[in-house]
Amino acid sequence: MSGRPFLQIPGPTNVPERILRAMARPVIDHRGPEFAALTQEILPGMQQVFRTAKGAVVIYPASGTGAWEAALVNVIRPGERVLSFNNGHFSAQFAQTARDLGIEVKEVALRWGQEVPPELVEEQLRANANQPIRAVLIVHNETSTGVTTDVKEIRRAIDAAGHDALLIVDTVSSLASIDFWFDEWGVDIALCGSQKGLMLPPGLGILCVGERAQAVAERGGSPRHFFDWRPVIRDNAAGFFPYTPATLLLFGLREALTMLFEEGFDNVLTRHQRLADGVRAAVAAWKLRPLGERPERLSNSLTAVVVPDGVSSNDVIRRARERFNLSLGVGLGRINGRVFRIGHLGALNELEVLATIAGTELALVECGVPIELGAGVTASQQLFARAAASLAVV
Amino acid sequence: MSGRPFLQIPGPTNVPERILRAMARPVIDHRGPEFAALTQEILPGMQQVFRTAKGAVVIYPASGTGAWEAALVNVIRPGERVLSFNNGHFSAQFAQTARDLGIEVKEVALRWGQEVPPELVEEQLRANANQPIRAVLIVHNETSTGVTTDVKEIRRAIDAAGHDALLIVDTVSSLASIDFWFDEWGVDIALCGSQKGLMLPPGLGILCVGERAQAVAERGGSPRHFFDWRPVIRDNAAGFFPYTPATLLLFGLREALTMLFEEGFDNVLTRHQRLADGVRAAVAAWKLRPLGERPERLSNSLTAVVVPDGVSSNDVIRRARERFNLSLGVGLGRINGRVFRIGHLGALNELEVLATIAGTELALVECGVPIELGAGVTASQQLFARAAASLAVV
Amino acid sequence: MSGRPFLQIPGPTNVPERILRAMARPVIDHRGPEFAALTQEILPGMQQVFRTAKGAVVIYPASGTGAWEAALVNVIRPGERVLSFNNGHFSAQFAQTARDLGIEVKEVALRWGQEVPPELVEEQLRANANQPIRAVLIVHNETSTGVTTDVKEIRRAIDAAGHDALLIVDTVSSLASIDFWFDEWGVDIALCGSQKGLMLPPGLGILCVGERAQAVAERGGSPRHFFDWRPVIRDNAAGFFPYTPATLLLFGLREALTMLFEEGFDNVLTRHQRLADGVRAAVAAWKLRPLGERPERLSNSLTAVVVPDGVSSNDVIRRARERFNLSLGVGLGRINGRVFRIGHLGALNELEVLATIAGTELALVECGVPIELGAGVTASQQLFARAAASLAVV
Amino acid sequence: MSGRPFLQIPGPTNVPERILRAMARPVIDHRGPEFAALTQEILPGMQQVFRTAKGAVVIYPASGTGAWEAALVNVIRPGERVLSFNNGHFSAQFAQTARDLGIEVKEVALRWGQEVPPELVEEQLRANANQPIRAVLIVHNETSTGVTTDVKEIRRAIDAAGHDALLIVDTVSSLASIDFWFDEWGVDIALCGSQKGLMLPPGLGILCVGERAQAVAERGGSPRHFFDWRPVIRDNAAGFFPYTPATLLLFGLREALTMLFEEGFDNVLTRHQRLADGVRAAVAAWKLRPLGERPERLSNSLTAVVVPDGVSSNDVIRRARERFNLSLGVGLGRINGRVFRIGHLGALNELEVLATIAGTELALVECGVPIELGAGVTASQQLFARAAASLAVV
Repeated sequence: MSGRPFLQIPGPTNVPERILRAMARPVIDHRGPEFAALTQEILPGMQQVFRTAKGAVVIYPASGTGAWEAALVNVIRPGERVLSFNNGHFSAQFAQTARDLGIEVKEVALRWGQEVPPELVEEQLRANANQPIRAVLIVHNETSTGVTTDVKEIRRAIDAAGHDALLIVDTVSSLASIDFWFDEWGVDIALCGSQKGLMLPPGLGILCVGERAQAVAERGGSPRHFFDWRPVIRDNAAGFFPYTPATLLLFGLREALTMLFEEGFDNVLTRHQRLADGVRAAVAAWKLRPLGERPERLSNSLTAVVVPDGVSSNDVIRRARERFNLSLGVGLGRINGRVFRIGHLGALNELEVLATIAGTELALVECGVPIELGAGVTASQQLFARAAASLAVV
Repeated sequence: MSGRPFLQIPGPTNVPERILRAMARPVIDHRGPEFAALTQEILPGMQQVFRTAKGAVVIYPASGTGAWEAALVNVIRPGERVLSFNNGHFSAQFAQTARDLGIEVKEVALRWGQEVPPELVEEQLRANANQPIRAVLIVHNETSTGVTTDVKEIRRAIDAAGHDALLIVDTVSSLASIDFWFDEWGVDIALCGSQKGLMLPPGLGILCVGERAQAVAERGGSPRHFFDWRPVIRDNAAGFFPYTPATLLLFGLREALTMLFEEGFDNVLTRHQRLADGVRAAVAAWKLRPLGERPERLSNSLTAVVVPDGVSSNDVIRRARERFNLSLGVGLGRINGRVFRIGHLGALNELEVLATIAGTELALVECGVPIELGAGVTASQQLFARAAASLAVV
Repeated sequence: MSGRPFLQIPGPTNVPERILRAMARPVIDHRGPEFAALTQEILPGMQQVFRTAKGAVVIYPASGTGAWEAALVNVIRPGERVLSFNNGHFSAQFAQTARDLGIEVKEVALRWGQEVPPELVEEQLRANANQPIRAVLIVHNETSTGVTTDVKEIRRAIDAAGHDALLIVDTVSSLASIDFWFDEWGVDIALCGSQKGLMLPPGLGILCVGERAQAVAERGGSPRHFFDWRPVIRDNAAGFFPYTPATLLLFGLREALTMLFEEGFDNVLTRHQRLADGVRAAVAAWKLRPLGERPERLSNSLTAVVVPDGVSSNDVIRRARERFNLSLGVGLGRINGRVFRIGHLGALNELEVLATIAGTELALVECGVPIELGAGVTASQQLFARAAASLAVV
Repeated sequence: MSGRPFLQIPGPTNVPERILRAMARPVIDHRGPEFAALTQEILPGMQQVFRTAKGAVVIYPASGTGAWEAALVNVIRPGERVLSFNNGHFSAQFAQTARDLGIEVKEVALRWGQEVPPELVEEQLRANANQPIRAVLIVHNETSTGVTTDVKEIRRAIDAAGHDALLIVDTVSSLASIDFWFDEWGVDIALCGSQKGLMLPPGLGILCVGERAQAVAERGGSPRHFFDWRPVIRDNAAGFFPYTPATLLLFGLREALTMLFEEGFDNVLTRHQRLADGVRAAVAAWKLRPLGERPERLSNSLTAVVVPDGVSSNDVIRRARERFNLSLGVGLGRINGRVFRIGHLGALNELEVLATIAGTELALVECGVPIELGAGVTASQQLFARAAASLAVV
């Protein structure tokens, strides 16, 4: 198929050619001075992205799933207990990861489309006061439903319960796309992958670890080796890693950080807000509904759209791919066939969003969904025109 | 600016990443066997693109402008006479190139927006019967106006006049985008660049030379060295060039040919037709008019759009670039400020065209052109939906 | 510094530009058909490399260290016992990984420079007959000392002891460089990384898992999630992965396999033998000694060279890097300062080896080691000349 | 063949991967502001390379051969006379270019291996006093023989003759490799290509044009269009070109200039001197002779080596390529079969030179040339060791 593909799944996101070029280079000796300088440039940059002054950034050659495991095994022992909320595929999988590692999980079922209600966190912590809970697991942005939980309020809820549980936050589809403040919100461990807001190919699992979590890891945690952050943090001080790092991805990460700061990190977040508003305007114009229940908690990095009864979202996705080289995200787990997901995070601009909406409309119409061709694009354009006008005033 | 740029000028066109990768490689010895094999793979491929069995393909490290010069100096002497038709910036420049080289040019003025009328060619040849005309210069697709001339009918007109003038055709913005038949249409010399339908970066000037033109070059032509095709054709037989060729562009050309044949060369042309129809549907929905006068001669590779009085097309172009990372083509020469040009040739697909139309609409509205946001996109989508439906039936 | 760097550490190895180009491309949807086809091309290719018909290849986005962990947690429970032999830094670290995971390790100390003696394996298994040993851990090629253990004989020793311990083999610096036969030698689990003989950048941990090991994993192993091979093997059947794979490295792996089979896999191994012989001839000409004790067990993928008393190998390495852009490997752990290591594996040819030897000579002389400049290069050239002559006869 | 190829022809030279990466990027609009900024960064950089304050740099999408033509047609009319010295293949071809363009050439035959003697220039100018000579054509470094002419002395000779002929200098294989001073030496036109000292792939012809030559071009020169420098210089003032430039090569040129200035332009020249000394030491150790007659005029960018009677240099070259992936330059024209040429210019370092020498030795021995394996490498290493020692003292 001619022309450029539109990869609009909610990650991996499109890798900008600048980043591809930064990685298409010879590997260097990971025990030499050039490599040390690279590490020492990346780590403070990632601290800025996590918005932390003291949190330690730990980079693994792994995936987001590996980052889940890393966040758990360093601070939780098999048999210890964590609190989890099931409001989507990824929060469910995070809990399952914990169970697979021998951790006891108190899992609270929510509707898929709901965010985690802070008051429920407080209630659960109070209710389980006599059964020690070591950590609260929160998925900041649930990638399967397009719903963002208010992490700041979760922290308040934990504090209100007077509980010392660690706050472990999955920021896989929010970091560098949706506002996140590690220090200010009192997060103990945040975890992420390389392939979403950081605009890299998959291959890195990244943690930000606060001082309290580091202290817990010193005396506790599971038997562990690969994901043990202690030797990583120790060797990173001199710019090295305890084992062979994914050198080329680190060159890519340096370039990604340069791009984020060139654009202005606040501008990056504002852009994600604007593009997400554009997609939501289109969904409304189609008279379809997002899976997320509350408009104010809809995600700025992806939108899950519910298809009408009688239509399979998988057909829509297949048409989009086969006819228009447009990749949309499938409905995961129990909502497969009922929703499709539009990714709008990472390196992205207005015209790419409009093309995505236009292509989605064509695929919907081909599958018999009764929307009006052009309605969504027009609504989105109107929003972008207003945004441009307001920018111009400034 | 985040995301991918939209380079929708009528060339250079977007270089597909497959081609960029094919060129990002070590240079090889241009006198070694690997290079010879490369040449011998490219030349027959280019013959297929020109649709010729016996025409010799000649590749210069140059530009389309260089190809003009090459087409002239090999067959025309200073002081000899050629017939030219001024229906746009590039046909005017082609004539100027001839004059700069000391060639006498009989130049017939047309309206910019008109194609070259075959009957006018016949009339001119008859009228100048006593002043020998050595060649008729035709720009197949006038890139400044978006109008395609019917080369087949031009040939008939020359034959009807019983004239032996060479037919020299500029296919810079038509080759591999708009139907062109070197042998069947009796073209003597066709000339092209690398940066349009061939999807390469600029840097090659390419000729296709028929047997009659080769014979003329043996006994005639201007003093020449760099553009002399005789040593090129001679050395090419063994896979070599008389001077250092642009090695990496040749690797890119091999990949471009592979892509064209993978898609199917007829499919490439059909796609250009479909995408052009989409753009024209949008222009109609905007209630703006194309510069081209006759609908049946509008170009499949670009569309020149006339802006309303009181608006500068340069403002529209600037807005599109600054706000939306969308590059449109300026009005060239005497029509600067009055038209903008949308390129829709080379590696391109429906969603990219829809994004281009959507971005153009936003820029037009920002400049105060009273179009309805979304109208063009919708019209174009409707056309693509019908095209998809008809493809599906097959 | 001008010109190409010489990265002659024993891994990561030089990534050929063909592989870099194969990876410098857009990420694709890891849940789409193009990705499935990629997986289904890679896995049988890797089986050929491991020389197995039925062993399951499991690819993790991780490092060789991750592959150690994967090889252990799938089949060994915390508290269970494995047998290990310490003949270098990496075998010691492999044992440490097991201990960190709560596994009991019976570790037998050897001299660094010794291979694992098969008779010692048999003796140990018999001696520990009443304490169940679940697995024997063997590093096929000890990257810190340049010594290769005879895995086939280890298998025989286990069988001779009538023991059912699994045979787990680290092939990190041997796969695709030194002869290795998974099926024929009765290996149960082989583990590897991407950045050595496979010529990729670091970022993949790769396992080959035999049927017996798969059966053990079904009923046993440690609590695990990320490294659990069961869901990977299950999803791989359809071409997918249970979590986001390192897409671009998989494109690189496909290209690497293509290159290995184009050269001929046997020719790849023969080339490693020849280049290693060249390096050993140079070391002999320098009158220095390799760390490996027995000539017939010296590694074909790297050579560890002992520096004379009074000289620090770290100085030699620093000079080579600073003056000649030549990266040599440091002495690891307890032999730091006493040896340097020349990597000669992966994508490599005679001239690169000769350049490496020449640069090493210059660095040695600068550090006051009394060798004769050119002696090593000459010895190596003589060997290559004889090899070329014998090839010519065939 | 495994490993990296050694392209040691005297150009095209190895393109550093930094430059390849700088070019593997989207084409931009050559009429937009980003492009203008690129041009305005490159032109002053090229002035530094030519060492000129006022000379205008003119960049063509062409080859070095095109640059010859450009240097001639802008200032010489057909029928006018130039003075030329035939001391090798390229000076002969330069003269032939002039003749092909209708220019009368007074060509003085020299031995191939001789430089152009300044006194001969003076003598010729005086002898032809009554037949106006418009220009003296000099090839600074004759790429076919490895001999450098003293341009400064040629200028003195022209001045001594009291002659106003333009001094046109071919710096194709000397610019950025061998000391060259446009202003100080009173050069009127210097011409170059992209593929030698500038480390780019072929595809650019570059001129530096002094004020006197510009003035001549205003009132004289041949009929011309593509190579007319007047519109180029005019449009360059605003950062643009009169026709589509080779955009990606210009991105590459920017990176090349960055690399030259990072290394330090004087250091680049010193490095070429040092590497050339190394090659010459090897040739002496082989007891072979360079084609160049006078040691003090041997080229720093390539060495032409005469093979003994009874041996064909083409066999040596073929062996080097087939066995060792080493490309050496053939003997051109009348010395084909009698010499091979080692290129040592562009991006290059000591170890690459040593590898080249080692590979050449192996090829020579295979062809029966009675040299001692290792002798050349050793001699070259000794020279590099002394150079390193003297650098260390500083």
